[in-house]
Formats: sequence, structure tokens, C-alpha cells
Amino acid sequence: MKPDDAQLLDISGRRAAGNERSRRFLELCMPPAGLSLEGRLMRLLLGSLGNPPLRLTLWNGESVFTGEGDAVACVRIADRSALLRLFINPELYFGEAYVDASIEVDGDLVKLLEVAYRGMELASFRGRLRLFTSLDRPRSNALSAARDNIHHHYDLGNEFYRLWLDREMLYTCAYFPTPDATLEQAQVAKMDHVCRKLRLRPGDTVVEAGCGWGALALHMAARYGARVRAFNISREQIAYARARARAMGVGQRVEFMEDDYRNISGTYDAFVSVGMLEHVGRDHYGELGRVIDRCLPRNGRGILHSIGQDQPALLNAWIEKRIFPGAYPPTLREMLAILEPHEFSVLDVENLRLHYALTLEHWLRRFEDARERVSGMYDERFVRTWRLYLAGSLAAFNTGNLQLFQVLFVRAGSNDVPWTRAHLYGQ
Amino acid sequence: MKPDDAQLLDISGRRAAGNERSRRFLELCMPPAGLSLEGRLMRLLLGSLGNPPLRLTLWNGESVFTGEGDAVACVRIADRSALLRLFINPELYFGEAYVDASIEVDGDLVKLLEVAYRGMELASFRGRLRLFTSLDRPRSNALSAARDNIHHHYDLGNEFYRLWLDREMLYTCAYFPTPDATLEQAQVAKMDHVCRKLRLRPGDTVVEAGCGWGALALHMAARYGARVRAFNISREQIAYARARARAMGVGQRVEFMEDDYRNISGTYDAFVSVGMLEHVGRDHYGELGRVIDRCLPRNGRGILHSIGQDQPALLNAWIEKRIFPGAYPPTLREMLAILEPHEFSVLDVENLRLHYALTLEHWLRRFEDARERVSGMYDERFVRTWRLYLAGSLAAFNTGNLQLFQVLFVRAGSNDVPWTRAHLYGQ
Repeated sequence: MKPDDAQLLDISGRRAAGNERSRRFLELCMPPAGLSLEGRLMRLLLGSLGNPPLRLTLWNGESVFTGEGDAVACVRIADRSALLRLFINPELYFGEAYVDASIEVDGDLVKLLEVAYRGMELASFRGRLRLFTSLDRPRSNALSAARDNIHHHYDLGNEFYRLWLDREMLYTCAYFPTPDATLEQAQVAKMDHVCRKLRLRPGDTVVEAGCGWGALALHMAARYGARVRAFNISREQIAYARARARAMGVGQRVEFMEDDYRNISGTYDAFVSVGMLEHVGRDHYGELGRVIDRCLPRNGRGILHSIGQDQPALLNAWIEKRIFPGAYPPTLREMLAILEPHEFSVLDVENLRLHYALTLEHWLRRFEDARERVSGMYDERFVRTWRLYLAGSLAAFNTGNLQLFQVLFVRAGSNDVPWTRAHLYGQ
Repeated sequence: MKPDDAQLLDISGRRAAGNERSRRFLELCMPPAGLSLEGRLMRLLLGSLGNPPLRLTLWNGESVFTGEGDAVACVRIADRSALLRLFINPELYFGEAYVDASIEVDGDLVKLLEVAYRGMELASFRGRLRLFTSLDRPRSNALSAARDNIHHHYDLGNEFYRLWLDREMLYTCAYFPTPDATLEQAQVAKMDHVCRKLRLRPGDTVVEAGCGWGALALHMAARYGARVRAFNISREQIAYARARARAMGVGQRVEFMEDDYRNISGTYDAFVSVGMLEHVGRDHYGELGRVIDRCLPRNGRGILHSIGQDQPALLNAWIEKRIFPGAYPPTLREMLAILEPHEFSVLDVENLRLHYALTLEHWLRRFEDARERVSGMYDERFVRTWRLYLAGSLAAFNTGNLQLFQVLFVRAGSNDVPWTRAHLYGQ
């Protein structure tokens, strides 16, 4: 592989980090009179976050605020070890310390994370952070590793997800025709948006890569008369989806395969993948492109729907470690590297970032409403882990740290395409 | 610069070409009994185009057809020199021979070019063609060279363009709300489509890179109340645009600069470039990105509208030589390389390929209606050059050889974005 942009970015980040480290070290050795070492560390930490409107308070009552205006939240740090870990690698250890309650947050957790994300952007924090992370790359997504990575998250128990997802169990960005739509309405609208973009007609065959609990595949079969083969390597999700297909009486038209997307065979009128690409990993984009290429005939069309980013950067270290091992959100340019080597033509790209923020607002509210049941099913650490993950994701979409790209493509040269996009808007 | 994809493609193309060349050479040395050398050359030529439904006829009446069904057109070749040149480099010499009338076409020129393009795709012709072209790269677009390149095409005389463009003199892809809209309606609709995507409001400031005869800048000022500074290095176009601004009484709100996009200074609410990127050249995408970056504030938004391609490949050699020196149509992925290094977020990409085909249908029809006047203004070679260029472009958009990408972006993290795209469709 040729050196990619992320690596190049790292190099310049590291150089800047070297200068910054020297400066910090000198400051630490010579703290100004009247300020404790702990106070100095807190100031440096807030400075590296662009001095957001956050208050940091220590176990001994010492408190620092370097922002302007009112603090949106106060972070209480329980002991010296938590402070040091936070200083060394805030991206990873904020999460670790929050989960074991050596950090407590007074005030709005989402707002806290938003001002931290915005500050990090301004302070070009990411580049500098690389200094402290030894394992810079997401974990492998080779066949067996992918199975472990997916099992880690999606096989937590359907009962748990049922507590805070919508009725159809869609665990991907919804599409809200207006912001006051319910989550239930918005998830159905998302499925219809995808089906309309693909111009699904009765009898069309569809292959779905990464089908979750099967809602989209079932919707395509039940509402659009499509014949769907849907792939997923999460055992619990596939079992759930098969049971639903039987209950809905569409078992003849939907086939759920407990298998990896790399094993897709046959040809189909449409390829669809909603929320799987995040787990594929950049090293495997070539393989995914070849899979799509071999399964689409000349009239074929497809959608890749994925969390993304504006610029290449690794996923938040804590999320990658605790929530989504192996995950990487691509830039739009990186997503297009899947399609460009083959005979495809991109018709339409839509960024639904704020729709994912609103989806997460619904999920977080429902999760908080169910937190006692979650705590009973697992434990308090689990509740804090998931709260931070949902709040952090909401903050990331709200601040533009994460994007949601929906990419529609057809076979190169196909003129069987809609004249405009007005049909997506009821015209 | 690191080796880019186009170069990598060339290398494998060259290897395949080597084998192909050996095979051809052997066949030429040992023509089957009963077939003339000329007949053999025609068969090989048609074979390299994927045996399209085209008939080739020689000066002596010898005729070859290797396709299936009926021929869509017949190409009459006037002499041995034309046949040899066509065989050696059809991409370049078809145009040269058509212009000097050593090739005549009986039948539909556009259909002929369409079946040739489709055949070339199937036969992976492009990779092989590289063998015969010594100057593989488009010409330089450094500051002074860019001025010469633009002068070559856009300073042919406003009178000429007035003969076949719409009333507002827009020389870029129109947007047809429905296919039966007139060209006049579709060019106004295109300007409105761009202004709606940018959400232009009265008092907004706009910078336009490459403004042609000024129609979009004038439209933004007159219909949307924007204050526009528009750049172009074509002297004739700028003079025309300034005269129109005075005549329309919007001279206070539109400033036409006879200058290169690289000299844009100041900050603006919106950046817009419709149909200039084709002339920028990949070597200068970094410069263009820095220009956009320095001229947009935190609320800034922009549109890049450009002819593009699905996969990296050089522009047709004849078009680059005779029509658009220095031009290169980027892939969408290459376009995004302009934005990705900076703090931008892509909101929306729309591919308007078939709208450009329809625009070209209108232009070609009007051009043919005016061909006697054109011949009087220039000469018959000029008429044939422009007919082939317009017909070839129409064929290229119809077959998917060229695309039209409209990329809308905002500053990273800006939440001042429309909730959905329904507002573009009158909702």
C-alpha cells in the first residue's frame, strides 16, 4: 500500500506534538508561584481543549475554569491517578474514568462533550493526541476477527436493544422528514428513502450486506415486493430476523444468511449496505468493491450508507476500545475508493449528519428512561459506558466530528436513472 | 507527488497493449488469403472498437461491417493515409480526418460516436490507446499558460457563441426540471438550482471562479440581491459581462474581474464555480483548495460544478488538442481531494450527466441551424471541428463517458444547513 493521507497527517501532527511537548514539560518543571501542580495540569488540559466553558474540580475542592462565559458542566475528578491519566490521554481515559466513576459530571453530559469536541477541533487536538497512543490503528477485520468484533457489540442481547431502539429495531441513522417526526416514523421514512433511491420494484432482487435485525430486508419484501438475501455475522440478530420473517409471512421472499459480506455470491438488481461499512475497515475496501462489482449486473444499482468524517482520523480511542473494536468512519473520498476501480457511476450523495444527531437524541432519552432495567440486566458500569457512548456520539454528530453519507450509484453508462431527484420528495 | 491512479492504470494498460500489439503485428504479416491489407486494417480497427454496428468504406469501394444488426452510420475513408492514421491513433485522427474531410460520415454522427464510445468501453480501449500517444498529459495550466488555453476557446468571438447558446449565454450544463423544458428555461432553472443549494439571501456576498459571460453572477445580483465578485481570464467574456451589468443596472452589486482564480482575495459568504474546474488541471487542485479555504468564513458554503468521469482517464486526445488545451475532467474522488485537506463538509452531490446530454442536443441543433453563418464567419473546417466537438460531447454524456458533478459543501461543523433537500423541489 502507498502511504495514505492519514499517515501523512500523523507525521505533521507528531512534529507539532514534539514542540508542544517540550513547551509543556518546561511549564511543568517551573510552575508559576501560587499554583499547585494539579492546578497547573488542569489548566494545561483545558488549554489543550481550546479552553472550553468547562469547570474542573479536584478531590480537595481545588477548581479551575479557563473558558469564557458560564460553564456548561463541571467535571469532578476523584483522585490524582484519574487526573494524571486524563492528562496523558484524555481521549481514552475520560471514558475509562467516567465508567469507573473516578470522574463525575455535574450538568449536561452531551453539552460537555460538544464543547470538548469543538475545542479539540480548534486546538487541532487530534494531531497532538497521537503522541500518547501506542496502538494507532483499529483492530483487524479479517474474517474471524470481524466475527469477534461484531459479536462484542451486537450480541449483547436483543432484550437490551429493544429497551431503547424503535419498534422495528433499526440501529442506524433515521431520516426525519421534519424534526418533529417520531423515531418510529423516521425509521420507516429512512427505509422508504433508501428504497426510493434504489427505485425498488416488485420482483427486484436485492442483496443486503450487514442487515442488523432485518428490518430493511423485511420492509423491502413486505412493502416493495422485493426478493432479498441479507447477510450478517451476528448470530443473535440473524435468529431474531428469521423469526420475524416467519411471523410476517415473508419467509419465501427474504433469506437471512449468517455469513460475512465477503462470501456474497450470485447477482442481484440492487446492492444495499446500511451501517456496515464502519466495521469493514479501510484495508478491506478493495474486497468490498470487488464483492459489489461481481454481484451487480448491467442494470444494477446500489447504496452505501455509512458514518463518515470530513477528514481522515482514527475513531475516538475509547469508542474503538470499548464499543466498536475495528471500526473506522471513512471520509467520502475514502468511500469512493470502493467504487472507483470498477464500472460504477455515483448518482447522488446525501449527508444526513443532523438526522443521526436527532436519532441519537431519541435513543439517549429512551436509554435514560430504561436505565434501571439496564442496570438490573448488567451493572452500573455498563449503564455509564453506554450513556457515555450514546452522549458522545450525539455530540460528535452535532459538532460535525462525524458525518453520515448515503451514496447512491449505478453501473457506469446506465441511462435507466431518474431524471431529477424530485421523486424522493413526493413529486 | 505520489504516483497517482491514472499512472497506475497506464502501466497495466501498457502491458496489455504490448501483447495486443504483438498479436496485431503477426496478423498483419500474415493476412488471410482473399482479404486486402486495407480490409484487414479496417477489421482490426473495428475489432479494437468492440465491433460496433458501423460500416467502413474505402476510396475504392471496399467495405467492411463486423457488427450485428444494421449499421447506424457509414464512415467513408478518402485515402490510404487517412486509413493508416486512423489505425494508428483513432482517438486523435478520427477528429483530424473528419475536419479535413478525408473522412465523411453518412448517417447520424452522434449515434456513430455513441456506438464507438460504448465499444471502446467494452474493449477497454482507452488503456490500449495510450501506446500510441506520446504526449500523455494535458498541457500546463500555470498562470500564463492558463490564459493562452482559455483565450484559445473562449475568445473566438461572442457573436459566434450567440448563434447557438441560450439568450443568457450560459456555456455550462443546464438543469431541465422536465425534459421538455426549453433551453432558455433550463438555464434559468440551473441558476436557481445553484442559488437554492447555496441558500442565497439578500446581502450575501459571493465570489465566482470562472464566470463565463457573467449570467450567473448577474442572476444572483438581480434575482437574489447578492453582492458578487466574479473572476474570469477571458477578455472578451469579461467585457461582455461588464456591459450587461451596466445595461441591467446592477453594476453596483456585481464586479467582474479580469483575473485568475488564484488571485482571489477577501472573504465571502459563498464560493461558486460552475464549469471552471475542467480547466484547472489536477496539478492545481491544491491551490484551488487553498483559495476556497482562505475566502470562506465559518458560515461559508460553496458549490463546485464540473464535468467529471467515473474513472481517471485523460480527456479525448483530439478534444484536448483542438478544443480544450489543458483540460481534464476529474473523478468525484479527485474533486474531493480539493476539499478534504481543509475544514469543509460535503452536504450534497448530484450527478446531472443526462442534463448535459440534453443541453448539448439543444446546442448542436441550434449550431446546425446556424452552420451557414458560422461557415461565413470562419470556414468549413471550423464548422466541421465544432460539429464533431458538440456531437462527441453529446455522445460522451449519453454513454456515460463523461459525468457532471455538482458538489455542495459548507464549513465543517456548521449546523446552519437545510434539514432535508425538499426545499430544492419547491417544498
